Amino acid sequence: MTSQQLYEQYTAQMRKIADVKYALAVLQWDQETYMPSGGVAMRAQQMATLSEIAHQLFADKNLGILLQELSAAEGLTELQQRNISLTLEDYRKNEKYSSSFVRELSEAVSTSYHAWIDARKQNDFAVFETSLDHLIRLKKEETQVLGFEDHPYDALLNEFEKGASVAWLDELFLDLQSSLKPLLLKVMDSPVPEQAFLHQHFDKDAQWRLGLDLLKQMGFDFERGRQDLSEHPFTTNFNTGDVRVTTRIDEHNLASMTWSCLHEGGHALYEQGLPSGQYGLPLGEYCSIGIHESQSRLWENCIGRSLPFLDCNISLFQQYFPSLKQVSSRQLYAAVNGVKPSLIRTEADELTYHFHILIRYEIEKKLMEGSITAKDIPSLWNDLYKDLLGVAVPDDKNGCLQDIHWSHGSFGYFPTYTLGSLYAAQFYHYMQSGNPGLLKEVGRGDYTSVHQWLQLNVYQYGRRFTGKELCNKITGASLQLGYFMQYLTAKYQDIYHFD
Amino acid sequence: MTSQQLYEQYTAQMRKIADVKYALAVLQWDQETYMPSGGVAMRAQQMATLSEIAHQLFADKNLGILLQELSAAEGLTELQQRNISLTLEDYRKNEKYSSSFVRELSEAVSTSYHAWIDARKQNDFAVFETSLDHLIRLKKEETQVLGFEDHPYDALLNEFEKGASVAWLDELFLDLQSSLKPLLLKVMDSPVPEQAFLHQHFDKDAQWRLGLDLLKQMGFDFERGRQDLSEHPFTTNFNTGDVRVTTRIDEHNLASMTWSCLHEGGHALYEQGLPSGQYGLPLGEYCSIGIHESQSRLWENCIGRSLPFLDCNISLFQQYFPSLKQVSSRQLYAAVNGVKPSLIRTEADELTYHFHILIRYEIEKKLMEGSITAKDIPSLWNDLYKDLLGVAVPDDKNGCLQDIHWSHGSFGYFPTYTLGSLYAAQFYHYMQSGNPGLLKEVGRGDYTSVHQWLQLNVYQYGRRFTGKELCNKITGASLQLGYFMQYLTAKYQDIYHFD
Repeated sequence: MTSQQLYEQYTAQMRKIADVKYALAVLQWDQETYMPSGGVAMRAQQMATLSEIAHQLFADKNLGILLQELSAAEGLTELQQRNISLTLEDYRKNEKYSSSFVRELSEAVSTSYHAWIDARKQNDFAVFETSLDHLIRLKKEETQVLGFEDHPYDALLNEFEKGASVAWLDELFLDLQSSLKPLLLKVMDSPVPEQAFLHQHFDKDAQWRLGLDLLKQMGFDFERGRQDLSEHPFTTNFNTGDVRVTTRIDEHNLASMTWSCLHEGGHALYEQGLPSGQYGLPLGEYCSIGIHESQSRLWENCIGRSLPFLDCNISLFQQYFPSLKQVSSRQLYAAVNGVKPSLIRTEADELTYHFHILIRYEIEKKLMEGSITAKDIPSLWNDLYKDLLGVAVPDDKNGCLQDIHWSHGSFGYFPTYTLGSLYAAQFYHYMQSGNPGLLKEVGRGDYTSVHQWLQLNVYQYGRRFTGKELCNKITGASLQLGYFMQYLTAKYQDIYHFD
Repeated sequence: MTSQQLYEQYTAQMRKIADVKYALAVLQWDQETYMPSGGVAMRAQQMATLSEIAHQLFADKNLGILLQELSAAEGLTELQQRNISLTLEDYRKNEKYSSSFVRELSEAVSTSYHAWIDARKQNDFAVFETSLDHLIRLKKEETQVLGFEDHPYDALLNEFEKGASVAWLDELFLDLQSSLKPLLLKVMDSPVPEQAFLHQHFDKDAQWRLGLDLLKQMGFDFERGRQDLSEHPFTTNFNTGDVRVTTRIDEHNLASMTWSCLHEGGHALYEQGLPSGQYGLPLGEYCSIGIHESQSRLWENCIGRSLPFLDCNISLFQQYFPSLKQVSSRQLYAAVNGVKPSLIRTEADELTYHFHILIRYEIEKKLMEGSITAKDIPSLWNDLYKDLLGVAVPDDKNGCLQDIHWSHGSFGYFPTYTLGSLYAAQFYHYMQSGNPGLLKEVGRGDYTSVHQWLQLNVYQYGRRFTGKELCNKITGASLQLGYFMQYLTAKYQDIYHFD
């Protein structure tokens, strides 16, 4: 058999595995958008079965042999070789998991998710504690399964951002904290911009239509995707031709839906832009979660919270909400960039946001090293919010029950949000330095250059490079805190007028 | 290992197979409700993969051995034995199919479905012909795979209604045709009831809310199900706790949405009422498609198009649509039972409806025996409509492209609609004879007795009996044409005042 025939065998098997994984994603999307409560129990079981099948298909010994053969084969293109080496890496990792562990984890995630929903309804962490505790035990077991050199948490961090480690993040996050603190103090010393007009009553249907308009404007292709409502906004995809975003609408907070749409839209453009011919293969997948987050933050913050974007869109806001007729784009710009230490991560400004991440990072690190357990979370959470942000957490819903992530078993995910902001600032800097007219284009609602740049520099590569490698390739340097601090300082100087 | 331990092994494997099949049903539901057009190609492949996996799991040799052991085992309950014998029957049937055939069929169905959608848009059967032709060839191959004694079509009829055959249906349908013809002539000789008020403009949202109210009234549990919109209404379920109905809304035809809701609601009540503890096992499944259809027709027609039902609900209709304020329940009753030979099956009255079925039955029979092929369908269709209903088919959309069934590969399904009407009339007769106050209860919107009767006589048994057996058990007789003719004649005499 020729190398190309072997490669065909490999792609056929990978497509089949992807089919099962994406079917699982459809079930998950349905669970979080439309599924009635009566479907909970059996859906958990159905998703666990699909997880187990996907795992077994990928653990197939013949696939292992095929990958070995292909690793040594002559005549494959460079990209084919890259697919093979990445798949072999994944294969060896998958081999470490037993089917029973995969199933137990999937079932624990479903149970936890619904316990989290219930706990939020009852505003009581205790309702979530038992199933979260089970999940944490499984995740700690997973760190052993995966293996690590220095810190157990490294094993999980690596799942979302290859090469990430406690050693790296401890240093980066310490620098971040020391850079953000003085900036926060300066901002807090300045007059607070008017934000009240963002908290009038904003009709649900009008918000929904505005969200769709913004998604269209940024280039989301509705022939290859759709938006729905869910408790917690997310983006998922079943192939590059079917990318789904969700949002939620707060009738007393226009910013909540609006910048969530831009955020998820950024994720979605990445998924719609990945190479469709590589379905099921590493080169058809996103680079890393950190890079994925850079895409959402680039659109949500670098573009979406910029003055040119708001200059362009102020009339659209006013068209949907006549009560904003007296608000100028500069006032809106100041309002949506208002800085104030607060309780809810997803509603935080770009500055204090990262303190929310630092808190979660500390808690996860301690959970994984075993120095605390689930029951310790609420008090530690509340203490850290007091220490770092100076806010008193009134209850669990506004505290440690606010995020979906732990209920999904996603430990190690939060740090990628901060990495995403840092990558986004660094990328946006390079995008602008190569195109001095870029901000003018954005001010006209013309994203042609932005799309081309992202397609050329990010989307087309899929998982070909790690996040760190991609950053080096694009900007000629590793991830630097400086670009983010420069971006943030410039914005707040402009709004708060300090030196 | 004890018999009960073996039985546990069996149920575990069956649950797993059901998980995959229901996951497939979620993908199908999504495809017909929310999926963007860009998802078509990969969704077809994803569904084919799940079909193939379900087939392979069920074809597992170890399951065959287990079923053999359990067939001979002592100490199983009667119901457990029944599950085993039905599963063994299914297993032997499944063994006849190769994996490649299952995948080819699933892919052909997806392709055909989208070709059918396109053909309808372009109003041109030719767009559908090639993929339908491929599907028909596969279905003919399937009749050979399944085997048959007399007529190849028998193999497919049996898939939907065990024990059904061309010999049986030829005779039954001939009787039906000779009974319906004189009744139709009498009705056609009488003055036509006023129907124009059903074709005013009826707001989409108000219709949607009316539909939900009617589903609630009939006892559909929205904690264990939901309704959405789709091109063609259908009911599906992912377990008894998650049953989905769909509807479509025509703003110029109030009856279209209304009685479709009652129809799908009848199917849904059956699925919600099946024994949830038997998930994945035959006793947790519906009896037959004919019996399933009897449930939809009982609610749609026997109850929904009756005077007591309309007496009860006229004020609800008027509340949503003030333009109906001048319409009495008797006028509405006459209007929704107006008889007129027409082009579209799903909008046909209860009398001419069966001519639509007879036409499809004849065409399917000929396709399966090979005396015609796909290309002959339009002209044969149009000729039969002329002969049997006296109507001229103007185009394919109003002719042979109107039904989704063939695009789904569902050959042998149509006759069950007529069987369903006949079963429904026979069941409703017995339900009333055991409870003389029943119609009064229906007139008050009180369906307690109806639910209890259906739960006791139909729902609780799942697939324990065949349709024919169930009919005998409930009514002490095999399926009789007489009950249906009696029901229909009484209704039309009441409305049309002939002797």
